[in-house]
Amino acid sequence: MIKTPYLLFLGDAVDPLAAKVAQGIKDWRPEYALGQLRLPGCKADMGIADMDLQQAWDAGARTLVIGVANRGGYISESWRAVLREALETGFDLASGLHNLLQDDPELAQLAARLGRDLHDVRVPSVAYPIAGGIPRKGKRVLAVGTDCSVGKMYTCLALEKEMRARQIPASFRATGQTGILITGGGVPLDAVVADFMAGSIEWLTPDNDPDHWDLIEGQGSLFHVSYSGVTLALIHGGQPDALILCHEPTRPHMRGLPGHQVRTLEDLAQVALPLAQVANPDCVIAGVSVNTQHLSEDDARAYIGETEKNLGLPACDPFRQGAGKLAEALAAL
Amino acid sequence: MIKTPYLLFLGDAVDPLAAKVAQGIKDWRPEYALGQLRLPGCKADMGIADMDLQQAWDAGARTLVIGVANRGGYISESWRAVLREALETGFDLASGLHNLLQDDPELAQLAARLGRDLHDVRVPSVAYPIAGGIPRKGKRVLAVGTDCSVGKMYTCLALEKEMRARQIPASFRATGQTGILITGGGVPLDAVVADFMAGSIEWLTPDNDPDHWDLIEGQGSLFHVSYSGVTLALIHGGQPDALILCHEPTRPHMRGLPGHQVRTLEDLAQVALPLAQVANPDCVIAGVSVNTQHLSEDDARAYIGETEKNLGLPACDPFRQGAGKLAEALAAL
Repeated sequence: MIKTPYLLFLGDAVDPLAAKVAQGIKDWRPEYALGQLRLPGCKADMGIADMDLQQAWDAGARTLVIGVANRGGYISESWRAVLREALETGFDLASGLHNLLQDDPELAQLAARLGRDLHDVRVPSVAYPIAGGIPRKGKRVLAVGTDCSVGKMYTCLALEKEMRARQIPASFRATGQTGILITGGGVPLDAVVADFMAGSIEWLTPDNDPDHWDLIEGQGSLFHVSYSGVTLALIHGGQPDALILCHEPTRPHMRGLPGHQVRTLEDLAQVALPLAQVANPDCVIAGVSVNTQHLSEDDARAYIGETEKNLGLPACDPFRQGAGKLAEALAAL
Repeated sequence: MIKTPYLLFLGDAVDPLAAKVAQGIKDWRPEYALGQLRLPGCKADMGIADMDLQQAWDAGARTLVIGVANRGGYISESWRAVLREALETGFDLASGLHNLLQDDPELAQLAARLGRDLHDVRVPSVAYPIAGGIPRKGKRVLAVGTDCSVGKMYTCLALEKEMRARQIPASFRATGQTGILITGGGVPLDAVVADFMAGSIEWLTPDNDPDHWDLIEGQGSLFHVSYSGVTLALIHGGQPDALILCHEPTRPHMRGLPGHQVRTLEDLAQVALPLAQVANPDCVIAGVSVNTQHLSEDDARAYIGETEKNLGLPACDPFRQGAGKLAEALAAL
């Protein structure tokens, strides 16, 4: 297990979205988020105390979590000095990057010499099966988005909190590094070998009690050409009883893909539901989660109201308003 | 490079489809397929000479190609004695299985001691990029199927032969072990890490001459829950200008998935085209390839005729009739 609490390393994040690993920890396990460490030019801020390594160590932090992602997932040269010094100060390191701490000769040797742990939460540690497509017991809901990074993980974490408060048995099922860092388990899906993607999700969400809900964290988007295959493996491996559609209405284009237009929620419903029904003919769309972080309170309410009218589905922003509406929609199925 | 000619090892293939690696080599590079070696109970037959290891060696074969796949891709215990003896006889080994020859301690040590080569054609040897979705020059066609193993590779290989005969520049682009064993290059897509699947296909099919066609071998099916994510990565990474729909009309259920009904060509057209247009808005469906191996000549003609009428698209069985119709359809685009 990763030692807590954490010092969250935000590096030189190019925008707040790049630090979504840190944001997730801060929002869902605030007791782990003791402080943040930012490099010059960092465009992200968790709104918690800025600390240097020694201050954080003295305050009790024991793991430096790399809370920022860059395109391609490598260990940036500008981060290296900090990571080295962290190990020397006493910290373990935890990372969800594609390129592993344990594969970096300098960091691996230094950690070994000093007796520190390197946690690469993105490394699959299980020999996942090939998906068998056999119907499973229990209920599953999957968050699918019109784009990447629109709030699919937040939606599922908020649903977990809300459903548990209502005495509905529910388990968040992490499929990415942030979720795994938050909950301590899951499938690092984007690092799984192609043939075993859907099987890894079957493994993650096995038979369960009839009234239990698995809340499966979505990844990518059916409309995002870089990662859409991962999304479809989730839809077919997850065998969901319900989908929650997730959307961020202010994107100028698909994340990281200038020239690729963001599709509508209607487009998503039309494409995602028939695909989901391949794995579970009874799958329905339960509701819509709108990420209104870039809208005013009034605009957010108006947008959500219009969405409910246009799609005929309950809609809300689970972060701003809580996930009550979505929990009710699932409970009513 | 893998030494030729080959002795094709069919093992204890449970049905002819399980030996599709061997069948592909025999059909498209018959000059490499010197003989076959079958174990008791083998349900596949290439129609070439049965040879034991010594006979094949004396006849000039230099590599034993594992021409059979089993579910999960492991080295079966019943194969091990043959592989050992092959190395001792003088053969190199070539395999497209998920589990690698080079990771098998016994075979790796024996090969090293005897100076034989172990070729694992399924191992990605390139650090593929993440897909960028930028429009590319040249033309690309992708084969998509209603199920796995319906003839997508055959369709593209037949198209390559036909288009080259018509002086149309065309390149088969292999995405699986058989294709790689046949052509000597390609992307072993089902062994690629999830995040890099679409990028590996962009890498495989870069900018080309405006009149050149890449003929991209399909994998899996959008309707096959075990592998659908791989299929969608091909659709979005391949950025095809045209799709060829592939179908085998006699399947009782989806391959390996009892209880999962095979969808129609109409269903496939309806789901695949909008997804392809996410990556290339101008993509069209160029034609249909029907695998009629289990139909009589009359039934095959009737089925193909009905398919043309129902879908309003040119259809043929490229293996039985040649791929002329499909080549014409592509040339007309």
